[in-house]
Amino acid sequence: MLKEAIYHRPKNNYAYAYDESTLHIRLRTKKDDAESVSLIHGDPYDWGDGSWNYDTKQMSKSGSDELFDYWFVEIEPKFRRLRYGFELKNKKDVLVYTEKGFYKSIPNDDTAYFFTFPFINKIDIFEAPSWVKDTVWYQIFPERFANGDTKNDPPGTLEWGSTDPTPTNFFGGDFEGVIQHIDHLVDLGITGIYFTPIFKAYSNHKYDTIDYMEIDPQFGDKETFKRLVEACHKNGIKVMLDAVFNHSGYYFPQFQDVLENQEKSKFKDWFHLKEFPVVTEPKPNYDAFAFVSAMPKLNTENPEVKDYLLEVGRYWVREFNIDGWRLDVANEVDHQFWREFRKAVKEIKQDVYILGEIWHDSMPWLQGDQFDAVMNYPFTTGAVNFFAKDTINAVEFKNIISNVMHSYPNNVNEVAFNLLDSHDTPRILTICNDNKEKLKLLYVFQLSFTGTPCIYYGDEIGMTGGPDPGCRKCMEWNTDAQDRDLFEHIKKLLQLRKENSTFTANDINFIVSDTTTNHIVYTKKDRDHETIFILNNSDKDIEVEVPLYMKGKNVIDLWTGE
Amino acid sequence: MLKEAIYHRPKNNYAYAYDESTLHIRLRTKKDDAESVSLIHGDPYDWGDGSWNYDTKQMSKSGSDELFDYWFVEIEPKFRRLRYGFELKNKKDVLVYTEKGFYKSIPNDDTAYFFTFPFINKIDIFEAPSWVKDTVWYQIFPERFANGDTKNDPPGTLEWGSTDPTPTNFFGGDFEGVIQHIDHLVDLGITGIYFTPIFKAYSNHKYDTIDYMEIDPQFGDKETFKRLVEACHKNGIKVMLDAVFNHSGYYFPQFQDVLENQEKSKFKDWFHLKEFPVVTEPKPNYDAFAFVSAMPKLNTENPEVKDYLLEVGRYWVREFNIDGWRLDVANEVDHQFWREFRKAVKEIKQDVYILGEIWHDSMPWLQGDQFDAVMNYPFTTGAVNFFAKDTINAVEFKNIISNVMHSYPNNVNEVAFNLLDSHDTPRILTICNDNKEKLKLLYVFQLSFTGTPCIYYGDEIGMTGGPDPGCRKCMEWNTDAQDRDLFEHIKKLLQLRKENSTFTANDINFIVSDTTTNHIVYTKKDRDHETIFILNNSDKDIEVEVPLYMKGKNVIDLWTGE
Repeated sequence: MLKEAIYHRPKNNYAYAYDESTLHIRLRTKKDDAESVSLIHGDPYDWGDGSWNYDTKQMSKSGSDELFDYWFVEIEPKFRRLRYGFELKNKKDVLVYTEKGFYKSIPNDDTAYFFTFPFINKIDIFEAPSWVKDTVWYQIFPERFANGDTKNDPPGTLEWGSTDPTPTNFFGGDFEGVIQHIDHLVDLGITGIYFTPIFKAYSNHKYDTIDYMEIDPQFGDKETFKRLVEACHKNGIKVMLDAVFNHSGYYFPQFQDVLENQEKSKFKDWFHLKEFPVVTEPKPNYDAFAFVSAMPKLNTENPEVKDYLLEVGRYWVREFNIDGWRLDVANEVDHQFWREFRKAVKEIKQDVYILGEIWHDSMPWLQGDQFDAVMNYPFTTGAVNFFAKDTINAVEFKNIISNVMHSYPNNVNEVAFNLLDSHDTPRILTICNDNKEKLKLLYVFQLSFTGTPCIYYGDEIGMTGGPDPGCRKCMEWNTDAQDRDLFEHIKKLLQLRKENSTFTANDINFIVSDTTTNHIVYTKKDRDHETIFILNNSDKDIEVEVPLYMKGKNVIDLWTGE
Repeated sequence: MLKEAIYHRPKNNYAYAYDESTLHIRLRTKKDDAESVSLIHGDPYDWGDGSWNYDTKQMSKSGSDELFDYWFVEIEPKFRRLRYGFELKNKKDVLVYTEKGFYKSIPNDDTAYFFTFPFINKIDIFEAPSWVKDTVWYQIFPERFANGDTKNDPPGTLEWGSTDPTPTNFFGGDFEGVIQHIDHLVDLGITGIYFTPIFKAYSNHKYDTIDYMEIDPQFGDKETFKRLVEACHKNGIKVMLDAVFNHSGYYFPQFQDVLENQEKSKFKDWFHLKEFPVVTEPKPNYDAFAFVSAMPKLNTENPEVKDYLLEVGRYWVREFNIDGWRLDVANEVDHQFWREFRKAVKEIKQDVYILGEIWHDSMPWLQGDQFDAVMNYPFTTGAVNFFAKDTINAVEFKNIISNVMHSYPNNVNEVAFNLLDSHDTPRILTICNDNKEKLKLLYVFQLSFTGTPCIYYGDEIGMTGGPDPGCRKCMEWNTDAQDRDLFEHIKKLLQLRKENSTFTANDINFIVSDTTTNHIVYTKKDRDHETIFILNNSDKDIEVEVPLYMKGKNVIDLWTGE
């Protein structure tokens, strides 16, 4: 067996506590190399006659990607602590893999050879709010969803949908508009709204905050927001807000004070200034988001800044009963801040969902002490490239999805935020090159996958648009101009997701990934049921046989109900 | 190249902030596979004409073990954030490795392919106290070091060294004894003392605490301890105490209260009880250290317990100015507790050293938020097996040491607690089968290695002893019975370590690992100097050539001074 391919390291996606009594252990091997793998396991202190008492337990192959097979086993150690290693077999070899390296047989004269999960301490377990895995999100960009109250329109507001969005124009979308259209959301079947920023800011996107404690007046006031949250809750819809804590806006008074008073400003330690005088042109001489001078990076290590932002985190949960925080540019803020943020907001409300915006591999933020989830862009890339763009084939797609799933613990996957597009990308129908059939198939995949999916406002009725600002058009409320067929398709999928627990289950098995026909077949299983999904990602009709083991069983076609 | 062997994942030993401006990046490849590796790197937001602007920087091979080569590069990203990947070359292949997988050439139409170090936030950097890397520790088991005050002897105290130690006998060692013999330690040249537990307890080893806020009366009182710390500090010696927070002792009043009042005890949530009545026999029906009923595991998630133990942590630092805490069974206590512990004690004294007792791979505790170091048993195993036991050859030894060093960031290695033996193992001379020449060689290696070495009391004068309790004999104070030659050998090494910064430097390069002669040659380098170490781990004389590149240079023999 190829020793170089074998990988395991505890306390991340390879070994983690799933709950108070259960450990999940994974092993990586070269693809098609090992034929069986067993976990060698025992209590670290269970000795008798100078040797360690161990058992073995068969592992199952939970997936494969381009290069590797992944093996999985669940175990409930009686005393919540475990020493363990692996015994790998194929026709030619038997190999024992431990923390100290490879052996030909199981060394049990000492436990020091073995990997360790020292103790399952409850407080360290990754535990997202239980409601999240059954939630389907709907992302609203408030300026563009609906104008329900023209009295709060900012000066120069354009007529709804009268022209294409630009980086600077305004159409008057507000909270009243959301309240008035909540039936649309209930009808669709979503159960959570993620609002991009709503706090007082300068731009139409509001990512350049002026005051984190105030609602932007163009959206309404605190009373309107309270009514909005209540209306959502009454309709079984959770509310998540966007926390832009990496940087403030240019008109944030503390930053204005710095520009005005320079070295004498009492806020000079609120930012990462490098020299005086502080200048914004031609280039900012302070740390900023990217190189955007209007978005000065906040010094979240400064206790004053920390106190201020943590209180922001607490305030909107405490006073308005919101259910989640989405954290903008979360990976550039220090881990220490996020640990304190988690503690602060969960002390107010235990089951607040904390979602980090991170586009890359995010294990360091998902250890249980910081976030409940990240925006699952690796999932997005795989799904979009296969279904929407046709740039990868069925096998490459399966490999990517398998790789994503094995990059995180199962309890992390169960609450991953699986989006197809957002205010930061072109709209998904546009990415699909306006091919609605492809989009429908993509929705089948997204909405049958584990995690918590998100639909970007307007996608459900066939809206199109290129990169920002094109993807931020005004919501189409004229039902004649809406694609109701697409709406019904998504609605039906959401209903099926609600009724069939296999949709949200973590256990996915790709039975077929056919590069010739470009179709895939996967099953999803929970304790009691199994659902088989057959997705034909081509424009040709194909015939697919039901897998052998399903023959003769009582099978219901979920799509037709037959 | 063998793709399956190539490994990198950020925010651990493969990519970490070394200081406020410097990142260290490592890559693992199959041994002798890649001939050169470059880091592809750039600012995540540095775009021009639709493509990402990147540079490349050559990496150097920093070591190899049995299966792998390790590549290293240091980089100072201008804006403290980095996107990066790797370009690997050998005669046959060019391969680009990114977070998204392998490519034939560098994809720069998007930064999403690449690995990310999002931002160097100062507060997240692993930063141990600066004094630690120059410290040489001396471990004292207080009951057996010296009896300086017979007035505090416990009942039944035996005459010093009159008999072999047993698990239950007492010889009256105390603080006054340490104070009286401080000259011995100064003469040897050590600069830190690690005391096994000194708090009120039942046993002779004191790991079964009764009161964490009181000195055990057999050692003296708080006034004596204050004098001891002052005497140490006056002689340039740091003081580290042992915190046994995983479990209390049987006679801990809170546990006694549980045994007495059972379900009605107000301390029932201080432990991990599983049922009532709580019983200690035949087996404890509560969580304990190993299966020792007299050591009930403390519930460190209980805020009352946490407050109590954190105050213990603060108290001895604040009131007695101690310099370090060694944490017993540290891996079985929750991470959350240790994060709070670090914050609590460092708020009192910024440069307290926090050392965890962990016997296995410990990356999850060494991320900057918990410990400054762990007891480096993987180092111990490698060094002892080669020099003391002869169970591995020179190449296997080099592989283990290289593997240990690449398991952690360099700033972690620089303060690793490198011990040869302790109160938990046989004495090192006994492990050497009483072969003093082997032991001398082992000391050369230990004391020329990066990290912070520790000498177990009495080892320096040739004491012997098997496993606990054999290794806990009374210190030999009769100079005629002491091995003064060994003492002088170690003293000389400590002097050389003090005078030559290369000894503590992190940069080690094994030039020769000869399995025939069993000799090794390694160099250690810092900015200005290089030292070559030639260790002949055999009983035969050998001739060793000075490496070619050193010929003609001005070479000083550090051992003879010539």
